Amino acid sequence: MHSFHLKTSCNSTRAGELHTGHGVVSTPAFMPVGSQGTVKTLIPEEVEGMGFSMLLANTYHLYLRPGLEVMRRMGGLHRFMAWKGAILTDSGGYQVFSLAPLCRISEEGVTFRSHIDGSQHFLTPELAIEAQEVIGADVIMALDVCSAYGDSPEQVEQAMARTHRWADRCRKAKKRDDQLLFAIAQGGFSPDLRRQSATYLAGQDFDGYAIGGLSVGEPKEMTLALLEETLAFLPAGKPRYLMGVGSPEDLVEGVARGVDLFDCALPTRVARNGALFTWDGRRNIRNAAFRQMERPVAPGCNCYVCRTYSAAYLHHLFKCEELLAYRLATIHNLTFISDLMARMRSAILDNSFEDFRKDFLDRYQPTNEQTRFEQKQRWLKRAKSKPVVRPQ
Amino acid sequence: MHSFHLKTSCNSTRAGELHTGHGVVSTPAFMPVGSQGTVKTLIPEEVEGMGFSMLLANTYHLYLRPGLEVMRRMGGLHRFMAWKGAILTDSGGYQVFSLAPLCRISEEGVTFRSHIDGSQHFLTPELAIEAQEVIGADVIMALDVCSAYGDSPEQVEQAMARTHRWADRCRKAKKRDDQLLFAIAQGGFSPDLRRQSATYLAGQDFDGYAIGGLSVGEPKEMTLALLEETLAFLPAGKPRYLMGVGSPEDLVEGVARGVDLFDCALPTRVARNGALFTWDGRRNIRNAAFRQMERPVAPGCNCYVCRTYSAAYLHHLFKCEELLAYRLATIHNLTFISDLMARMRSAILDNSFEDFRKDFLDRYQPTNEQTRFEQKQRWLKRAKSKPVVRPQ
Repeated sequence: MHSFHLKTSCNSTRAGELHTGHGVVSTPAFMPVGSQGTVKTLIPEEVEGMGFSMLLANTYHLYLRPGLEVMRRMGGLHRFMAWKGAILTDSGGYQVFSLAPLCRISEEGVTFRSHIDGSQHFLTPELAIEAQEVIGADVIMALDVCSAYGDSPEQVEQAMARTHRWADRCRKAKKRDDQLLFAIAQGGFSPDLRRQSATYLAGQDFDGYAIGGLSVGEPKEMTLALLEETLAFLPAGKPRYLMGVGSPEDLVEGVARGVDLFDCALPTRVARNGALFTWDGRRNIRNAAFRQMERPVAPGCNCYVCRTYSAAYLHHLFKCEELLAYRLATIHNLTFISDLMARMRSAILDNSFEDFRKDFLDRYQPTNEQTRFEQKQRWLKRAKSKPVVRPQ
Repeated sequence: MHSFHLKTSCNSTRAGELHTGHGVVSTPAFMPVGSQGTVKTLIPEEVEGMGFSMLLANTYHLYLRPGLEVMRRMGGLHRFMAWKGAILTDSGGYQVFSLAPLCRISEEGVTFRSHIDGSQHFLTPELAIEAQEVIGADVIMALDVCSAYGDSPEQVEQAMARTHRWADRCRKAKKRDDQLLFAIAQGGFSPDLRRQSATYLAGQDFDGYAIGGLSVGEPKEMTLALLEETLAFLPAGKPRYLMGVGSPEDLVEGVARGVDLFDCALPTRVARNGALFTWDGRRNIRNAAFRQMERPVAPGCNCYVCRTYSAAYLHHLFKCEELLAYRLATIHNLTFISDLMARMRSAILDNSFEDFRKDFLDRYQPTNEQTRFEQKQRWLKRAKSKPVVRPQ
């Protein structure tokens, strides 16, 4: 199965095509996050219209709700959510470790309680594959064990070794031949373990490789160094997917190092919080500076929002906490990311990526790392602290 | 200024055309509510695509936020919200009495505190007109004094008389000649006062007449009797607008009695609560019966939602409290209302309205009146109890 074709690569940077049962995905590509079977606030036509051809959904969320029975009956996620493009599902590993309370891990699998209703579940590599076969994504992930920043070297090594054994179990459990299975390289923050993980998994002939466990709070230079350490030991001909990375500057740095696929909730999550991307950096639309601003929030931006509305209108919607605010901000940020990916791909094909990267990084003012980390922690805390039983 | 043309009328039922600076509105028509300059969750293209040609915005809300200074600078509401069709603004009377805390009324005007930040404001008939001229709606309303269900006959009569004096002041204050000014007939729950109010205002040559103060908690037979009492004394050649009415069965009864225009937050508000219209009555999409339902929530409905998604998907979105849920439900309910209005108009023009009305009412199971009243009270209470200062 030759699902991935490189069009060009120069140094480590590359442009390619991932062929799936639901269309061709031009890489490097960003996947908008639709954990629960919806890219928050948007309909599929809008996501497609922005130029996205693959989105990410979450096995953990869909397994808990609506559940596999409904998913099976509805004929899988594509039909359920009316998305014609490709879908990649995460296996649930990351969510079990980050969202579910009381998670206990053994060699067989992981026991956790649902963050929705407290019910107990037991997720094994085999069940993760079964669930993803029912959901029917085009690309599915092996179940991995996530380390936390601060785990001991022994803990990280054990988690990595188990991730490898689980990846093998996933490959054996897989029945559908119309889905691509990616393994997830782990190894925490040790260059040596990162190398080991990449080397081991590269030898097992998966359809592609994800890099997990990065961008979870460690310093940015460390992320990039470990990313390089991993990528160097993965086969050049297979797609590489950097999980959970998606700030504009991180996407540029990831592409520079040879990553093909990205997903991240950041562009849509910060949009709903009023942080809008411009080529100069993020802007907080709630800021009083926008109250009377007749021009669009990002002059020159050709997205629906900037073509149609003043910054003052967006500011007004956010101040009023109008639901349309979250939708328009989402459209703006995702269009920005789609545009960024398209420009990078085009620069790679033109052999001008290094110029693009320099120009971009010279101009774009990234959000302070500490601020961003704190924002993410607050969000995770909120996500976890949802009431166990929904108030009527 | 001949802005309203009757195409046909039979008994009291009528179909017409209201000509505005932003297009022709075929009547009877329902106006979706966009109090703060947005029909909640939707973009203007969607509202227009459903067949609506006029929407309602609120002077009270827009005066407080974004405020007249911003509204003036942005060139009025049409441009601000990018809506190409017609707009009608309520004068703020109803909102001051129902939403603002500490409202005190005198002959000169009404003092109230903002429900947003507690700031004090003084609204006069002249200011209501000035604000509406800045907002730039195609149809504007005179400032009225609202009675509450349970007010004494003396209170109601005084409120009515003041409403008349204020309507005259509004007419005198009006400067723009591209806006139609409607007066609001009041009179509480007294047939005699209703008659007096309609008669007085009919003699003052307004561009149209609204019927205010109905459907605020009184029994439905009383609403209809008082509506008839009012309409009988309004000039047939002027448009009649029944304020705040908009459940499907009430729209049919209003049209049957000769109402041309309606507005109501109900279709969009209950949508966000998961109540979806079908020709058989409202359905609560959160109900477990929909969990596995492959067919659309309203079979035969041709709206985007029913053409695209199963009831199970909508159910899932509501259970997950996904923002897309509120948007899709809004699209469904507004399309239903638009379809209902189009069918009624077509039946009037075909001279078959009585058959349509009978068929509709035979089939449609209205929501229990008590339930609906309680739901509305809960909503008003929530709307009032918003924190005075928004948490950051």
